[in-house]
Amino acid sequence: MTRERDNIAAMDGYVSGEQPDNIPGLIKLNTNENPYPPAPEINNVIKAFDTEKLRRYPPANANEFRDLAAELHAVNRGNIIATRGGDELLRLMITTFVNPGEIIGVTDPTYSLYSVLARIQNCPVLQVPLGADWTPPEEFAKNMNDAGVKLTFLGNPHAPSGVLLDQEVISRIANDLDGLLLLDEAYIDFVDPARQYRSPSLLDDFDNVVILRTLSKGYSLAGLRLGYGIGREQLIRPMLEKTRDSYNLDWLSQEIASTALRHRTHAAHTWKLVRDERVRITGIFRSMGLGVGDSEANFLLVTFPDGNAENCYEFLRNRGIFVRYFHHKALEDKLRISIGAPHENDRLLGSIRDFPG
Amino acid sequence: MTRERDNIAAMDGYVSGEQPDNIPGLIKLNTNENPYPPAPEINNVIKAFDTEKLRRYPPANANEFRDLAAELHAVNRGNIIATRGGDELLRLMITTFVNPGEIIGVTDPTYSLYSVLARIQNCPVLQVPLGADWTPPEEFAKNMNDAGVKLTFLGNPHAPSGVLLDQEVISRIANDLDGLLLLDEAYIDFVDPARQYRSPSLLDDFDNVVILRTLSKGYSLAGLRLGYGIGREQLIRPMLEKTRDSYNLDWLSQEIASTALRHRTHAAHTWKLVRDERVRITGIFRSMGLGVGDSEANFLLVTFPDGNAENCYEFLRNRGIFVRYFHHKALEDKLRISIGAPHENDRLLGSIRDFPG
Repeated sequence: MTRERDNIAAMDGYVSGEQPDNIPGLIKLNTNENPYPPAPEINNVIKAFDTEKLRRYPPANANEFRDLAAELHAVNRGNIIATRGGDELLRLMITTFVNPGEIIGVTDPTYSLYSVLARIQNCPVLQVPLGADWTPPEEFAKNMNDAGVKLTFLGNPHAPSGVLLDQEVISRIANDLDGLLLLDEAYIDFVDPARQYRSPSLLDDFDNVVILRTLSKGYSLAGLRLGYGIGREQLIRPMLEKTRDSYNLDWLSQEIASTALRHRTHAAHTWKLVRDERVRITGIFRSMGLGVGDSEANFLLVTFPDGNAENCYEFLRNRGIFVRYFHHKALEDKLRISIGAPHENDRLLGSIRDFPG
Repeated sequence: MTRERDNIAAMDGYVSGEQPDNIPGLIKLNTNENPYPPAPEINNVIKAFDTEKLRRYPPANANEFRDLAAELHAVNRGNIIATRGGDELLRLMITTFVNPGEIIGVTDPTYSLYSVLARIQNCPVLQVPLGADWTPPEEFAKNMNDAGVKLTFLGNPHAPSGVLLDQEVISRIANDLDGLLLLDEAYIDFVDPARQYRSPSLLDDFDNVVILRTLSKGYSLAGLRLGYGIGREQLIRPMLEKTRDSYNLDWLSQEIASTALRHRTHAAHTWKLVRDERVRITGIFRSMGLGVGDSEANFLLVTFPDGNAENCYEFLRNRGIFVRYFHHKALEDKLRISIGAPHENDRLLGSIRDFPG
């Protein structure tokens, strides 16, 4: 006999990309980690940390970090909530605003955690298929509204395609949605500045949008577990004061995260390096006859015209190169490949050339 | 218009003890922190930490820590879940095992977070009053069963009284309960070994018990946010694989927590120091005419016979000494005072002597 709730017993958990042990020579391009180390000042902060502080509870609301994030986004402290990775924010949006049985909307495909979190809350999920260019259909918001969707999760840039929607498109969706929009900008730091993308202007225009940001990718801090949400106070406050685990962020995480924002120019330099590699290897993939769309994220979705993506995944894996294959109808001829450092990308490309197909 | 769920809009959040800025000379005896620093080896681990690791996701399940905890408790890795403070475990027990609308059982008084978490899940709470000696009534389990309680939270030692139930009492409650028992042993490390308390033997005897442990108090690591649960695999696995946020513990937390368990003799020494102070100041409080029960935790519940506990709280606060006052009928003539280092306790006692009453 299980004691789990029926919806928990019936569901599968979230499956992340494989995290192999740190084998020497391993090339890990499967979970979109930044190939470059975090800002050197972070190492100084860790080395100078006063260990004795650990016996005391940390600042409950991470206000120092919130102030830095607020300054960065030209909002107030009350518009920011700091969370244990972006994932905690995704969960809090559901816990706080969506009753069990109410519908949560997502695109198909998308980050699979959204649906896992919905099932934990016992919420049905409406999946709206993306077009061939990985953009939502014209009637996306109407689809959500007609179904009575309470909360829509939308990634921009989209994963796993890397496609960026322009801010006009996002703003129109936000404007048209009856329910809340969680705009997941986990990969936004890697967008080409020439695209002139700016996040929606929440305070002025939208009372139904929370934007997710994370330090995991852009700031090379996946191992830190630090994300944050930006939105109007009426949306941020109940998550901050009621549904969040009290003391969700430890002392060291808060100090490291603040340091990362203070030394953002380091991170911005890694974004440029990743963009340059993105241009370079997109061109090489195409010259090899493989399909690659225009990604604005730190990964590429590569199509194998012969449909042997899963074989290539295994072939690469046997050579110590980890990329991501998804068992999903729209993705079965594709691999999602994180953009690594140049020498990693070169080894990847060489191995794909060797792939007998 | 609020967009919060009705149950969230109607509830108040958890209110923790005040966390004042670290004013020099401040004596902080209000949130049961350990007065002694964590093991010195933890400082070495922080200083030697390879910052570049932070760009990678941390081990998802904290298996190194789980193995150490399993060894300590003579169970298997599958019987342990590592969580972000004990609070995350409390939340996961509800998320995983209690449907909205099902009843959660607690003692009255108890740790107020239990009821806050129940309200977030929209669960009614059955509060069973404790006796004058702060122990549950004989018919405690029957009360829970008659109400159809799905999950009971029971602290041992109890907070805020510090009273320890013998293992026979706990075992009988566990045996009699139809539902699950979360046995919150957050303060168990401070129990006098002469009491010969041993946690229930879960693997052999009980399939409905999860024990909560934390490094916050016993290991001087409140600022780390690291707790864990012990139970049968059928209870631990769904929390580990389904309802927990993936990557709930960052790299540094995992390494520090493992170090704390490896160098447990340091922590055990602090437990003895706290016990010695507990005996000493319990005697002094009694000689001053104040009521103090036998606490097995790192705090005392002190009764002011004249009923002026709240005035004393303010008086102490004005002198930079923080203790805890609860607005609760059974506690309105009492203060909960964490046991500090001897010089802190002496200053506390001196100030209470100065209190005009």
